[in-house]
Amino acid sequence: MINIKENEKLNTLNHSCAHLLAHAVKNLYPNAKFWVGPVIEEGFYYDIDLDDESISEETLEKISKEMKKIAKNDRLIKRIELSKEEALELFKDDPYKIDLIENMPEDEIISAYKQDDFIDLCRGPHVNSTKLLKNFKLLKVSGAYYKGDSNNKVLQRIYGICFDNPEDLEEHLKELEEAKERDHRKIGKDLEIYMTDDLVGRGLPMFLPNGYIIWQELENYIKEKERKLDYNHVKTPCLGNVELYKTSGHWDHYKDDMFPSMKLDNEEFVLRPMNCPHHMMIFKNKLHSYKELPIKIGEIAPDFRYEASGALKGIERARHFCQNDAHLFVTLDQIKDQFKEVVDLILEVYKDFNITNYHFELSLRDPEDKVKYYQDDKMWDEAENMLRKVLNGIGIEYTEKIGEAAFYGPKLDVQIRPAVGNEVTLSTCQLDFCLPQKFDLTYIDKDGEKKTPVVIHRAILGSLDRFIAYLLEETKGALPLWLSPVQVNVIPVNNKYHLDYAKEIYELLREKNIRVNLDARDEKLGYKMRESVTHKNPYALIIGQNEVDTNTISYRKYGTDETVNIDKNEFIDLIKKQIETKEF
Amino acid sequence: MINIKENEKLNTLNHSCAHLLAHAVKNLYPNAKFWVGPVIEEGFYYDIDLDDESISEETLEKISKEMKKIAKNDRLIKRIELSKEEALELFKDDPYKIDLIENMPEDEIISAYKQDDFIDLCRGPHVNSTKLLKNFKLLKVSGAYYKGDSNNKVLQRIYGICFDNPEDLEEHLKELEEAKERDHRKIGKDLEIYMTDDLVGRGLPMFLPNGYIIWQELENYIKEKERKLDYNHVKTPCLGNVELYKTSGHWDHYKDDMFPSMKLDNEEFVLRPMNCPHHMMIFKNKLHSYKELPIKIGEIAPDFRYEASGALKGIERARHFCQNDAHLFVTLDQIKDQFKEVVDLILEVYKDFNITNYHFELSLRDPEDKVKYYQDDKMWDEAENMLRKVLNGIGIEYTEKIGEAAFYGPKLDVQIRPAVGNEVTLSTCQLDFCLPQKFDLTYIDKDGEKKTPVVIHRAILGSLDRFIAYLLEETKGALPLWLSPVQVNVIPVNNKYHLDYAKEIYELLREKNIRVNLDARDEKLGYKMRESVTHKNPYALIIGQNEVDTNTISYRKYGTDETVNIDKNEFIDLIKKQIETKEF
Repeated sequence: MINIKENEKLNTLNHSCAHLLAHAVKNLYPNAKFWVGPVIEEGFYYDIDLDDESISEETLEKISKEMKKIAKNDRLIKRIELSKEEALELFKDDPYKIDLIENMPEDEIISAYKQDDFIDLCRGPHVNSTKLLKNFKLLKVSGAYYKGDSNNKVLQRIYGICFDNPEDLEEHLKELEEAKERDHRKIGKDLEIYMTDDLVGRGLPMFLPNGYIIWQELENYIKEKERKLDYNHVKTPCLGNVELYKTSGHWDHYKDDMFPSMKLDNEEFVLRPMNCPHHMMIFKNKLHSYKELPIKIGEIAPDFRYEASGALKGIERARHFCQNDAHLFVTLDQIKDQFKEVVDLILEVYKDFNITNYHFELSLRDPEDKVKYYQDDKMWDEAENMLRKVLNGIGIEYTEKIGEAAFYGPKLDVQIRPAVGNEVTLSTCQLDFCLPQKFDLTYIDKDGEKKTPVVIHRAILGSLDRFIAYLLEETKGALPLWLSPVQVNVIPVNNKYHLDYAKEIYELLREKNIRVNLDARDEKLGYKMRESVTHKNPYALIIGQNEVDTNTISYRKYGTDETVNIDKNEFIDLIKKQIETKEF
Repeated sequence: MINIKENEKLNTLNHSCAHLLAHAVKNLYPNAKFWVGPVIEEGFYYDIDLDDESISEETLEKISKEMKKIAKNDRLIKRIELSKEEALELFKDDPYKIDLIENMPEDEIISAYKQDDFIDLCRGPHVNSTKLLKNFKLLKVSGAYYKGDSNNKVLQRIYGICFDNPEDLEEHLKELEEAKERDHRKIGKDLEIYMTDDLVGRGLPMFLPNGYIIWQELENYIKEKERKLDYNHVKTPCLGNVELYKTSGHWDHYKDDMFPSMKLDNEEFVLRPMNCPHHMMIFKNKLHSYKELPIKIGEIAPDFRYEASGALKGIERARHFCQNDAHLFVTLDQIKDQFKEVVDLILEVYKDFNITNYHFELSLRDPEDKVKYYQDDKMWDEAENMLRKVLNGIGIEYTEKIGEAAFYGPKLDVQIRPAVGNEVTLSTCQLDFCLPQKFDLTYIDKDGEKKTPVVIHRAILGSLDRFIAYLLEETKGALPLWLSPVQVNVIPVNNKYHLDYAKEIYELLREKNIRVNLDARDEKLGYKMRESVTHKNPYALIIGQNEVDTNTISYRKYGTDETVNIDKNEFIDLIKKQIETKEF
């Protein structure tokens, strides 16, 4: 989807349209006061103080009409430049604008834009006539705290978007509709994948039986791949003594993203944001010889991060999630081969899940950022150069991104472009010379000397939670057979005559470890068939008289209209094979 | 093992022996001061203030000799009775005794016991001569805070035990040796099952690869059994909003056992002590019909409890553990059948693990305890009577225990007697009319009316952590094949000639998903064989010239001295069968 903020032309258009919105609101509500109206990736919004009044969908309609009227009237949009003093005088009755102006530098020229008698502060630029703003749409309205502080007043935030022609607007609205349909929060609710409830806590989704089936399949899938590569899986607690994170550097570099700590007797504990320190301690637990390296420690590891409640998004962005994490402890000589093994695993997994729209990014530190990054320029230069060399050696293409590294080292990120929304990092492989030093990790080398291992942090499926969100959005909930919570839905045509045989089929499939549902409700066949489709069941079995008589089954595959009659064992072989090969 | 405290004769003997210990210490350290010296299940201890001096193992030996000398001298032990005033005068130079005396009621007759010139406060009774105390053993010494408060001075706590004949003492010491050998903390370290480290945090064990293999096998084992009984597994976060626990009653009745809460924005979160509230919310997430009941929600659920650091014990008692938990939402009519199903499952599991030393306890509330128990006498009476009726109906024998119920309802506990230590609760099945009400849970009954379901809480393996501790202690680490981290250890007789074939066998077994290790170190065969036994590997394969020539393998089963030569595929079939049948 287009990023309005990054498109210069649309950015100007949407900024101007935010003023058009404010202008219309002012016409309808003369007492309205305006806070800020920025352009965002998705268009623009404006935060408006209407005292105790809140805006409904119908009111949006009214505002939209008023905007159209102003746009039609072809109003000239004029830029006005003011000194701070003049600006303070001009907006003296508007506490929000005064607040903004007072925070501007003393000698700055302040600009405002005026159309008719409506004038509003803005850096601009703006288009020069309201008539250029007619292809807009107001998208939604919600409450937003003044300055984002929950102790402040709630303002009305109206969202909208504007294009320079009706075709682009229409296409965009279609895309939005599509995105809504794909939204994992909608699918997650419809298909009972997960639930959230404020009483449980914001940002703490709970996986329902259907969701946990997908989860377990993914967990087994990736753990099996990892076992084949000699990974050792462990289970570590999701919290630790604060001293552990002081040792690792998380406490210095990552505290703002962590939960608050808990005091217990003489100890202070904190929920972990990452599980690297636990794995470092596992390596440190015994003496290692170079012969044992590489040592690969993996875990589907629960982690916790503080996220502002406004940033939360279903299972895509929560305060609790589980990473498909591993740490490889390697010698200098092994870095290249091990990095290649990880990249190969990533590519293999992407093939299995039919992920084709991806590219690699080499994330480096920002040398200017002295807060985020562990300070050791020599180490950073060494690690970054080493990583470049390794990637060039493996022969993959990548772009470099400054300031995207982890606080402890540079990394290779794999960016994917999902069906909805912006590019995201799915997999990551990071080179770390820092944590092994901090934890004083060693192994005994060939020459009998103690050496420090290098650590490769890697995550393939990223967080399992977010990966499930991704899968739901890609497939619109129609998951491949091996991941489907219900794989086969057995529907007797008439309970009176066909239920016994349907039950027999149900038991037979269940015995073969196929996830099967028997829809024995007293409902019409058509209704049950439609619901099977709504539930995205990969296979619906229709069991009628013909099937009873011939000891067969008839199936309809999701997404097709064809009903196929087949021997029941043949059907079992067919889907067993599809499950085993993890057909996507 | 014998409980000294509960045995009247041994209780007196051990009390007297504590004085003998103090007497000897006083002879050796004239400035020593004495706090308390109680009898405990394991014998007795005495807390002694030696200023800055701490007692070593050698010093224990010296003290023991001095005790033997006094005992040999056959000193008469006399009881002296004093008024509080007289007692205060007699012990005026001893601040610890003054502290004790001052806390006694005004008009109490205070007793002390005297042997030679050594006199010490004690309720008694004591034996009447020191010569009866010669069959003792000082077991260990450790630091202990005065009054258990970590702000106070550290006293020296010496532990000992006394019997009335040398044979009993010797037998007991043997038992202690055996217990030490069985201690899961020792086995857990030797076999690399789990590790702990104060930097990670006290009470937070981490499962190493070997331990997590056992874990996964147990998880799969019990989840498969549960799936067959139509349990639905979920995955819920291990913390919740404090309001959730206010709703459930945990905040009122269980707060002292919980971690402190964490404030985040406007919310207050707390690590969960139990996962019932999360499962209640899952039931509540949608409308239910009576036709769907029973609904069984299961989870291998991480929980957290505050435990004093002194109470921690490896993976048996930690601050973080995972319960094999489930909640059954049932109608009144279904209670009996569902309870029976749970009891049957318990018995089936015990059979699989060869657990025979168990009995049932019906745990009821203590009506006097108004703090621990949710106050609703009618509900309690109903639930307790219902449970009695159900248990009688199922026909199992049980004893009743007052004050052992959960805060929300009565329960059936299954007590087992492990190879070491005291009886423990392994499984539990609880009847709950309380939480469904508090969470306002309902289902639509046949008559179209809303009804409140009853909840059965149950745990079969208890906590997986503790169950693993139990298994390690029962088996001394020699786990059955299906649970063993390494199932087959392949040992080439001579790397020069037999390594290739050994590798071939290794790969073959690995391909068959058998957990196999190849010991290719340049060590002698005998050394490797002994280590294979130390590591409790169920099968050691010896690969020498004969095996290479005849394309066979020779195996030695753990615990036997016999080496068996066999066709390799036959061997695979043999152990595959043993794994699949989960032979114990």
